[in-house]
Amino acid sequence: MKTLVVVSHPKINDSQTQQFLLEGAKLQDVTWHHVEELKNIDVEKEQSLLKNHDRIIFQFPLYWYSAPSGLKHWEDEVLTRNFVYGDGDDNLGDKEFGIVVSTGMPLKDFCHGGSENVTIDEIMAPYFAIANRAKMKILPTFTIAQFQYMNESVQMQLLIDYQRYLTQTYPDNLKNRQEWFEREFADRFKDFNDINCNACETILDTFIQRKENIDQLKSTISLIKQGEDD
Amino acid sequence: MKTLVVVSHPKINDSQTQQFLLEGAKLQDVTWHHVEELKNIDVEKEQSLLKNHDRIIFQFPLYWYSAPSGLKHWEDEVLTRNFVYGDGDDNLGDKEFGIVVSTGMPLKDFCHGGSENVTIDEIMAPYFAIANRAKMKILPTFTIAQFQYMNESVQMQLLIDYQRYLTQTYPDNLKNRQEWFEREFADRFKDFNDINCNACETILDTFIQRKENIDQLKSTISLIKQGEDD
Repeated sequence: MKTLVVVSHPKINDSQTQQFLLEGAKLQDVTWHHVEELKNIDVEKEQSLLKNHDRIIFQFPLYWYSAPSGLKHWEDEVLTRNFVYGDGDDNLGDKEFGIVVSTGMPLKDFCHGGSENVTIDEIMAPYFAIANRAKMKILPTFTIAQFQYMNESVQMQLLIDYQRYLTQTYPDNLKNRQEWFEREFADRFKDFNDINCNACETILDTFIQRKENIDQLKSTISLIKQGEDD
Repeated sequence: MKTLVVVSHPKINDSQTQQFLLEGAKLQDVTWHHVEELKNIDVEKEQSLLKNHDRIIFQFPLYWYSAPSGLKHWEDEVLTRNFVYGDGDDNLGDKEFGIVVSTGMPLKDFCHGGSENVTIDEIMAPYFAIANRAKMKILPTFTIAQFQYMNESVQMQLLIDYQRYLTQTYPDNLKNRQEWFEREFADRFKDFNDINCNACETILDTFIQRKENIDQLKSTISLIKQGEDD
């Protein structure tokens, strides 16, 4: 699976959040695509880029309840009617669509009765409408609230969650999560091949042991439930 | 009451709808403000413009379920946090906020189960969120669907409805409508002063006669209802 991250930020070098995410997105099969850097938008090239990826992510800071104008400009140029509505090879219908949005406000403000008085899902309606029109599968939005107040351990958790959002099989259930971690452990431990990495082996052994325990628990629960149904 | 129409359209001269609305907006106390024509956005000047009007209208064609990027660019520059959140003289809290949006799709498509599968109100959420943040009073959105298919009489009705949207006292009830028409008749008939305008007098007389009939009917209905309550 290949993922395209369409990033919009007018001052990306000044953004701690985006610089952090940029480091996180340095993964195999992930393409980072910053729209404000495009001098001229080559519509065909942009459409090919979309066609050549399986998961399309719009990533941006929340400016007045929407993406910066750069993303809208890109949308209005690149998303021609035929390309989005089109049938045949040109359509986006077999792809997944996700949003990574960052905000300086606390997440608790985004609810009815909260100080924003609107939910993140509600203000993302225009993007979901595009994805619906293109018959894409919509992933739950990934919201990053108040990155600047996160301590290092919360940031590390965010990094993993973000990487999973970009590359893990949807939906985000235990099975897909396990598969993702197992693959990532194996991939990343390769980098330690010239070092005697005892820690790596221990982590992997523990992970596999726990996974087997969970599988055992699951089949026990399944047996109990079967008993209940009889 | 002074109304500011903040218009966004990247090719306004080619837009039949916008040219039609431009003619309609040539009214006393209505300022037409096309954001794509601004070479550089002078934030202070734009904020003064907003402060000096009582009703703020965002007017645009629907491009991918939102305004063209020009409006977002204007928003991101002009709507500084202090200006929108601010207390004291600088706030927008005593103003009204409306949207005039045009679309080439039929209005019936904008509902759940319709081919757009989303309502106009839902996709306008980011604009309502701004208005809410600024504590402005939100007017019902004025949607123009498929202008190109309208015949002349439908267009003329649209023109009147649009002019009422820009200048009539909110809410749009019978009393405010009557007042609007009476004032507009009087104002516009002035232009006929060097012509012997019998038609004008007839129209005004008929209007006033009917208004009195309605008032009579209303007090009759009121009496009947009072009888029912006893």
